[in-house]
Amino acid sequence: MSVRITSVDVHDVRFPTAAAGDGSDAINKGDYSATYVELGTDAGVVGAGFTFTNGRGNEITCAAVRALAHHVRGRTIEEIVAEPVTFWRSLSADVQLRWLGPEKGVIHMATGALVNAVWDLRAKLAGRPMWRFLAELPTEELVASIDFHHITDALTPDEASAILDKGRDGMADRVALLERDGFPSYTTSVGWLGYPDEKVRALTREAYAAGWRAMKMKVGGPPADDLRRARIIRAEIGPDALLMMDANQVWDVDEAITNMTALAEVDPYWIEEPTHADDILGHARIARAVTELTGGRCRVATGEVAANRVIFKQLLQAEAIGVMQIDACRVGGVNEVLSEIVMAAKFGVPICPHAGGVGLCEYVQHLAIFDFLRVGTSLDGRMVEYVDHLHEHFVDPVRTRDGRYLLPAAPGYSATMRPESIAEFRFPDGPAWR
Amino acid sequence: MSVRITSVDVHDVRFPTAAAGDGSDAINKGDYSATYVELGTDAGVVGAGFTFTNGRGNEITCAAVRALAHHVRGRTIEEIVAEPVTFWRSLSADVQLRWLGPEKGVIHMATGALVNAVWDLRAKLAGRPMWRFLAELPTEELVASIDFHHITDALTPDEASAILDKGRDGMADRVALLERDGFPSYTTSVGWLGYPDEKVRALTREAYAAGWRAMKMKVGGPPADDLRRARIIRAEIGPDALLMMDANQVWDVDEAITNMTALAEVDPYWIEEPTHADDILGHARIARAVTELTGGRCRVATGEVAANRVIFKQLLQAEAIGVMQIDACRVGGVNEVLSEIVMAAKFGVPICPHAGGVGLCEYVQHLAIFDFLRVGTSLDGRMVEYVDHLHEHFVDPVRTRDGRYLLPAAPGYSATMRPESIAEFRFPDGPAWR
Repeated sequence: MSVRITSVDVHDVRFPTAAAGDGSDAINKGDYSATYVELGTDAGVVGAGFTFTNGRGNEITCAAVRALAHHVRGRTIEEIVAEPVTFWRSLSADVQLRWLGPEKGVIHMATGALVNAVWDLRAKLAGRPMWRFLAELPTEELVASIDFHHITDALTPDEASAILDKGRDGMADRVALLERDGFPSYTTSVGWLGYPDEKVRALTREAYAAGWRAMKMKVGGPPADDLRRARIIRAEIGPDALLMMDANQVWDVDEAITNMTALAEVDPYWIEEPTHADDILGHARIARAVTELTGGRCRVATGEVAANRVIFKQLLQAEAIGVMQIDACRVGGVNEVLSEIVMAAKFGVPICPHAGGVGLCEYVQHLAIFDFLRVGTSLDGRMVEYVDHLHEHFVDPVRTRDGRYLLPAAPGYSATMRPESIAEFRFPDGPAWR
Repeated sequence: MSVRITSVDVHDVRFPTAAAGDGSDAINKGDYSATYVELGTDAGVVGAGFTFTNGRGNEITCAAVRALAHHVRGRTIEEIVAEPVTFWRSLSADVQLRWLGPEKGVIHMATGALVNAVWDLRAKLAGRPMWRFLAELPTEELVASIDFHHITDALTPDEASAILDKGRDGMADRVALLERDGFPSYTTSVGWLGYPDEKVRALTREAYAAGWRAMKMKVGGPPADDLRRARIIRAEIGPDALLMMDANQVWDVDEAITNMTALAEVDPYWIEEPTHADDILGHARIARAVTELTGGRCRVATGEVAANRVIFKQLLQAEAIGVMQIDACRVGGVNEVLSEIVMAAKFGVPICPHAGGVGLCEYVQHLAIFDFLRVGTSLDGRMVEYVDHLHEHFVDPVRTRDGRYLLPAAPGYSATMRPESIAEFRFPDGPAWR
């Protein structure tokens, strides 16, 4: 059966979240938004994908998707599956558009939205949730989906094959474990910079009561404020629960080391984005300092704005990270994320995907589950971020129980938005914006 | 006198260069284009700036300029000069748009177009060509224009002040030298991948006769073809002229080392973009290998798509480059380029700016001259790229003599396009595109 992609529709969808202070951190404030892509097919099934943005500028990523759409429109799934890297490069290495990246920022996020929509379509056509669709793919097909260009000095196709073959062992047991317990998670809803102390305390207490034993706070404000808020959370959650910190890149390298020296008092589990996301050498220096400071109890985490597989490769090669925070739509979609997940396994670094925003929880749960089932094969140090925002706009929203993600069951990548939400929040003509 | 920016106009200008094979290399083929910005003022003077793109997708950078324009419209030059980093960050760190980079790709190129237009306006108001305007600025004003965020581990404001103060010594002599001899240059017009061998030979002969003693060829095709073309050029120019090679990122790290082992035969002066532009560790490995291979005769060069000052910082820290190829409009305009030029001086790496495309020669000549006059203060290893394309569309085009750039004399950054060219080549409504 040949299925052809006959249309590519792009919607500029924005949710007015800025007013509530939700999602505010040291450098980002805005209305959580999505550049939402629908692929129509002659089979009637619709592939859905999106990239997340922060409000203004969503029209730029929409323009980028439109500029790339001709590589997708008219293609059959059979053609794409026959030569997956050729297809992927038609977007990521378009000879005219590559200049606008290369493989980074707006143009790469647009690539991700389209590529993810194709994978959503494939999983829907197969009648499987994305995690199961990926976990059951033959090793050759997974390896053939990865563009090894520029990463062969860290991971060869043969090494990837060996990891993915080995990942088949015991997979059924791991599925059963997740069906019983769900996937570990942590919450970022307690400590946004926009929240006053009492709100932080109340939310922490509430989250702890709901079963969360790992919580993340934002840092990067005045150091005394960061420490005060950290003490509040630590006092509420006791010594055994995990407290993570996220600086959203505001610190310089030496400043990060200084500030973590003070914050070490509250026993942080990781420091996320301690400095500029492009600074591999800086992260490596901070990682060495933090390891020494805490006897290895605290590690460096980053990845939510890591531009592509080449940045992740170097973070691993330089031993700059102890936690790898892949993102589903910052890079060029599932194909590129596959390369990152397999590299992490080779280097023995656990993956804790970035989520929140619009629909990121929906996306990344599949990736973390796939990693556990087929690649990393361990839950040690693995958690998916959880933020309780905007799930109601998705047809198949995430479900959690006692601080754990439950296995998604519907076919696809959980990326499909409710038509009513698209109509209501479409910018600038939806009723919410008029 | 207060001058206010009253309007920001953006033009999508595209030149149909693809058909001729001009500008083709291992990964880029397109119609050289510009996202062209005009800042109207209440003083009547118009500031001009642009970013260069490769054809399709120019509409995306235009959209990004429009999304940032409100940070510029309505501002006075006095406000901008009073707090230059505050102004720069209003664009580069916009709390909603930063997510689309951060500080990279489309959004940062758009920042550069706007920021450069402001500097063009300042130089025009001062009645000076940009190189002289910059070279004569007080040290405090230059330092105040640099955003040191995320680079203080490589360069502090005090270190920058010391370099720029020292750069005043002997400046008048250096101006006199350039007035007499012009600025050293090399040509990239001889060896595009799209050209057949006989065209390469003829163009090389022509360029040599015209006085060029440094020429760059594209590599990254089949290795045997690269070597054959390199031998043709070396045979034409003799053993003393410089032959540079540009791989435009097509090679993996080990592949670059292998291919340079073969190409070392023709005594290359540098290998440019040997692998992915984001791969700092990869460039460092290649640099060590090439140094060993050639006894230090050949060096690694990169920078034309280096996303920002943090990437350049690391390339310098890791000793990954022996030539730093700054670009005028890839990063966030003059403010960010200043930080890069001063870092290069601190690390003792010569600057050879990237040019070509649309108007890049016009832009970067000013930066190289400023570097020589006030920062690096040496011509040792310094050359500006020269490509003989599209200069006729500029009001104040570059002028060369015997393979050297002559000092620009008109006020401003040489960025102003001829109105007839804008009208003719505006996409999609200009007569050239209808």
